[in-house]
Amino acid sequence: MTATLVGIVMGSDSDLAVMREASTVLDELGIGHELRIISTHRTPERARAYAVDAAARGLAVIIAGAGAAAHLAGFLAAYTPLPVIGVPIAAGALRGVDALLATVQMPPGVPVATVGINGAKNAGLLAAQIIATRDPEVRARLAAYRERMAASVEAKDRRLQEEDAAAFADRGGE
Amino acid sequence: MTATLVGIVMGSDSDLAVMREASTVLDELGIGHELRIISTHRTPERARAYAVDAAARGLAVIIAGAGAAAHLAGFLAAYTPLPVIGVPIAAGALRGVDALLATVQMPPGVPVATVGINGAKNAGLLAAQIIATRDPEVRARLAAYRERMAASVEAKDRRLQEEDAAAFADRGGE
Amino acid sequence: MTATLVGIVMGSDSDLAVMREASTVLDELGIGHELRIISTHRTPERARAYAVDAAARGLAVIIAGAGAAAHLAGFLAAYTPLPVIGVPIAAGALRGVDALLATVQMPPGVPVATVGINGAKNAGLLAAQIIATRDPEVRARLAAYRERMAASVEAKDRRLQEEDAAAFADRGGE
Amino acid sequence: MTATLVGIVMGSDSDLAVMREASTVLDELGIGHELRIISTHRTPERARAYAVDAAARGLAVIIAGAGAAAHLAGFLAAYTPLPVIGVPIAAGALRGVDALLATVQMPPGVPVATVGINGAKNAGLLAAQIIATRDPEVRARLAAYRERMAASVEAKDRRLQEEDAAAFADRGGE
Amino acid sequence: MTATLVGIVMGSDSDLAVMREASTVLDELGIGHELRIISTHRTPERARAYAVDAAARGLAVIIAGAGAAAHLAGFLAAYTPLPVIGVPIAAGALRGVDALLATVQMPPGVPVATVGINGAKNAGLLAAQIIATRDPEVRARLAAYRERMAASVEAKDRRLQEEDAAAFADRGGE
Amino acid sequence: MTATLVGIVMGSDSDLAVMREASTVLDELGIGHELRIISTHRTPERARAYAVDAAARGLAVIIAGAGAAAHLAGFLAAYTPLPVIGVPIAAGALRGVDALLATVQMPPGVPVATVGINGAKNAGLLAAQIIATRDPEVRARLAAYRERMAASVEAKDRRLQEEDAAAFADRGGE
Amino acid sequence: MTATLVGIVMGSDSDLAVMREASTVLDELGIGHELRIISTHRTPERARAYAVDAAARGLAVIIAGAGAAAHLAGFLAAYTPLPVIGVPIAAGALRGVDALLATVQMPPGVPVATVGINGAKNAGLLAAQIIATRDPEVRARLAAYRERMAASVEAKDRRLQEEDAAAFADRGGE
Amino acid sequence: MTATLVGIVMGSDSDLAVMREASTVLDELGIGHELRIISTHRTPERARAYAVDAAARGLAVIIAGAGAAAHLAGFLAAYTPLPVIGVPIAAGALRGVDALLATVQMPPGVPVATVGINGAKNAGLLAAQIIATRDPEVRARLAAYRERMAASVEAKDRRLQEEDAAAFADRGGE
Repeated sequence: MTATLVGIVMGSDSDLAVMREASTVLDELGIGHELRIISTHRTPERARAYAVDAAARGLAVIIAGAGAAAHLAGFLAAYTPLPVIGVPIAAGALRGVDALLATVQMPPGVPVATVGINGAKNAGLLAAQIIATRDPEVRARLAAYRERMAASVEAKDRRLQEEDAAAFADRGGE
Repeated sequence: MTATLVGIVMGSDSDLAVMREASTVLDELGIGHELRIISTHRTPERARAYAVDAAARGLAVIIAGAGAAAHLAGFLAAYTPLPVIGVPIAAGALRGVDALLATVQMPPGVPVATVGINGAKNAGLLAAQIIATRDPEVRARLAAYRERMAASVEAKDRRLQEEDAAAFADRGGE
Repeated sequence: MTATLVGIVMGSDSDLAVMREASTVLDELGIGHELRIISTHRTPERARAYAVDAAARGLAVIIAGAGAAAHLAGFLAAYTPLPVIGVPIAAGALRGVDALLATVQMPPGVPVATVGINGAKNAGLLAAQIIATRDPEVRARLAAYRERMAASVEAKDRRLQEEDAAAFADRGGE
Repeated sequence: MTATLVGIVMGSDSDLAVMREASTVLDELGIGHELRIISTHRTPERARAYAVDAAARGLAVIIAGAGAAAHLAGFLAAYTPLPVIGVPIAAGALRGVDALLATVQMPPGVPVATVGINGAKNAGLLAAQIIATRDPEVRARLAAYRERMAASVEAKDRRLQEEDAAAFADRGGE
Repeated sequence: MTATLVGIVMGSDSDLAVMREASTVLDELGIGHELRIISTHRTPERARAYAVDAAARGLAVIIAGAGAAAHLAGFLAAYTPLPVIGVPIAAGALRGVDALLATVQMPPGVPVATVGINGAKNAGLLAAQIIATRDPEVRARLAAYRERMAASVEAKDRRLQEEDAAAFADRGGE
Repeated sequence: MTATLVGIVMGSDSDLAVMREASTVLDELGIGHELRIISTHRTPERARAYAVDAAARGLAVIIAGAGAAAHLAGFLAAYTPLPVIGVPIAAGALRGVDALLATVQMPPGVPVATVGINGAKNAGLLAAQIIATRDPEVRARLAAYRERMAASVEAKDRRLQEEDAAAFADRGGE
Repeated sequence: MTATLVGIVMGSDSDLAVMREASTVLDELGIGHELRIISTHRTPERARAYAVDAAARGLAVIIAGAGAAAHLAGFLAAYTPLPVIGVPIAAGALRGVDALLATVQMPPGVPVATVGINGAKNAGLLAAQIIATRDPEVRARLAAYRERMAASVEAKDRRLQEEDAAAFADRGGE
Repeated sequence: MTATLVGIVMGSDSDLAVMREASTVLDELGIGHELRIISTHRTPERARAYAVDAAARGLAVIIAGAGAAAHLAGFLAAYTPLPVIGVPIAAGALRGVDALLATVQMPPGVPVATVGINGAKNAGLLAAQIIATRDPEVRARLAAYRERMAASVEAKDRRLQEEDAAAFADRGGE
């Protein structure tokens, strides 16, 4: 397990069900990380302090998940030189369209690397890819991860050939 | 003219063409105000300082206009107890839908009083209505403003009865 | 508790589940208010009378919640000089997109201070912020409210550090 | 020409360029009508009086065109028993999506017969169809109108067969 | 009860749950009508015959409800001179947005009087308003209907004043 | 049953519940086909090999179903000269709007024949129509299929005339 | 040049500027075709006759382009067993979103093979792919077409390497 | 200037006007890069080869820009372990909404770091931030870049205070 290289921040504890997937995949890839609940609008000073200190504390990447008018990723990006990955979370009536636009449509000068709605798993993988650009061991683990992923799809494809589609579907795929 | 009661803030000088309408209507109503260019993401510390100091400086309302992932109004609202009015600005490919959602869909606890896309004039009027709740003179000026507005619509209606619709339209209404 | 300063109006009794949140937060802040069911389209004369009389009855702010082609806030705003806060309610197939646009996109001259879809709690807080511009006691209560809100987020963040994310999530945050 | 049976109302003189098409087609069908500029939000009392008096003045149908948070058709429908046809007008950043939803999504009990965005011509034809349900002469004129319309499409189709598509397109169809 | 003046047509039996509301309100207003399942795409010849014969059979208005690429109302309107009311039905992934646009955005020359998504009740009322332009008895019944509707809203408003909002909401309004 | 003429490919086993409908209708029409799980992004080499070999293996049409950023149909179309039918699948927060646009908006030069969201049944029918352009027996089976479909709608229409709408609806149509 | 195998139909002569691209690419591939202007709503009997006769006249595929509530492709598909390719045309305020949904979201039983908005060129290519399933010469011409297309992209890529990006862009690519 | 660390790939030469901004900002930060035109659908083998070889050729990051059904970024991401940044380009009727969704909504397992519509400048900055995680010199240049950016906003703000808003706006800001 590496040192704590990734900060996973979310705006509300209700985002944890989604954001845990980033933590799970980073665990699987042996990348140290921390999970925090910090709100742009309810605890702005803590959000600012977190972003200002992140690089000095040794973090390499920040993952930020928020719903609705999701300002968290952009707020942190304004205060840190580190790459910030934004996870728009589907909450409320608009099912994440608001969060997607509020996260991805950043003004020129301050990017947020946005993944899909509720895409916390991909946020974890993207953080790992960024770390892998300097860490061959993480690169190797990512390669192995992809191979397992491909093997899993291939196994399902084989089983679908072997048994009836109806039976396969009834069993829920796997 | 009152003291400077309203701060009109925009994220970029390209927003000025829209945001000036707030200034114009506040001038017309005799309400003192200031115009500022402050970017959430490019000058976050200045944005923070502006919001933190606003109430002590005597402002009563802040109007904030921004486009795209429009975080400005929500950012200021996180740092000030004053009512913050958000103006989503139509900029870029999405024509303000992104700015509208990023401005209005604030999380519980920190409201932004959002007006329509490019609705800076209405933002100025709303600021005046808020000030009018404590200032009878502004209340009177607002009442007179509404009467002029109604009279203007009525005058157009009368002229449309008097002349041919084609001629009226060719002259561009007024 | 102040005098009745805020009128909370909704277009249908089915909106009460959402609109009660405005009432709850105003209770918490000690601001007197009333709850009314008045329909723009089914009881237009009552809606008109309510708006026409509101200022004379001592109201300072009106909160109006409606779904679908949500005309209520704009209708009241046409008849009263008071600031009107609009709450778009997610009802029916479009989940509040219709209500949001019908509430926020007001023509120049008659603003509605729009909050997020189903954002009745924020409507109550915005009404309190408006009242606080003239009432230091409400201002103090709002400041205390914000501190409690921040403390709650901070407490959740601390507990997430102390226990396993899985356990935390399983307990539903709090 | 019949008596004045159709009232064509618009919220702003900027809507006249679109709304004139309703007038033109009613002229062509010999149906008497009037054109009015009345704003829901800037002249609500006039809008109310217009709707309240419409039936007694002998109108059979009202056509109402408005843009943005287009409340006009619904407002009139709340005050008159006559059928009200709504024309959403494409104005501003959202190009009429806001006007369409604010016009068509009326609550149960008060319908608005909505036509397409900028569909003033169809609004005129729909008014004529409604009048034709009681007036055989209008019915006959509508039938002739449809025949001319079909003949025009057929003539274009024939000419496209006779000449080169490139030449046809360069001449702009007709 | 009048003769059969209104044809209520739907594209699929799955639309009946919505379209019955048109039938119910027409029953309540004493207007004779018929309910039919006719598909534009699966039974086009029957759809055509229905529209071609409708006026001669004595119908005054057709109401057509369909979901998805909802062509039914436009198809019937192409074949009949009668006013056609379209009801977009929320079915499938897009929840009626597709049906709304496919119903309302008719080309110049052939209007469809569109009501809101799933707005079958309003379609029935609109049909009644059209019939009322020639039938004073239906006009009187519509006026009484509106009075009952207003009285019902007013009764709910009164009860909300009399009892606690929480108790009111828990009882589900009524 | 014909030889295996249609390849039904899906990006994930979770798509099988939808994609089976293509298989069912092809069975009903006696057209040989195969079902495969192949992911553009997780098993790109297999996807490429499948498309490259498809024509030589005797396939006439490929049906590809995927959700979210649905690249599968376009990917296969880039590698095969065969017609590719795309089925956008409603998965995740955007309910298939993303899949629809990612499938249908192909650049000039490489078409995908797109059907509606979750429209796997129509994809099967479209594949059959393509095969029917060279196979009179399939043409005859398709004609019979359409007749059964029309007869089913007509039977429902008749039953609705014979019994009460309420009873009909309560029985769920059929 | 083959016999006339493809019918290209459009709802209005204003669609010709887009639909000609289908004709151009079919010319390039040596596939005989015809261009027709036929409106679903203004000339429904001609549309029906065209679809009913198409197969007997020897057509193999129909391409139908229309804007707004684009019913043309679905209408023709209801009356012909041939594969129908739909081209949604960007016309009016909604820029083709209405046409896309009205074309692609067909009900189960009657598919339309939809291409992208204004995608007439791809419609022509798709028609050619369908014909190529039975005609090896067309297959060969399509393969050559793809090779030219790839070569053109590769040539641009090479030139971009050879000269300055600024100069390349200023010359407009080619 | 570093070695060539960033590959900027676009699907068409028409994307160059947007994608050059990535090149410009990387030049400004002294990061070596290359510009390529490679189409997923028209030159899939070249796209595949580019992605497969990228890491071995020493690239650290790939930036991919495409419009419409923008598959390019996801396609490359499927074939390379490097972080891939996607730039949705506003082209055609949907103005980039299609490209945004087709780029960002990647399935679990293969992320694309998406920036805003036409956000090529931010893509360049994000690539630099990723490289800066391992290169202190780039880190320093990025810090200086941010300072210049802030200073530019501050200068505009000062000038707006010094001169009349009207004069400022007329001069176009700067």
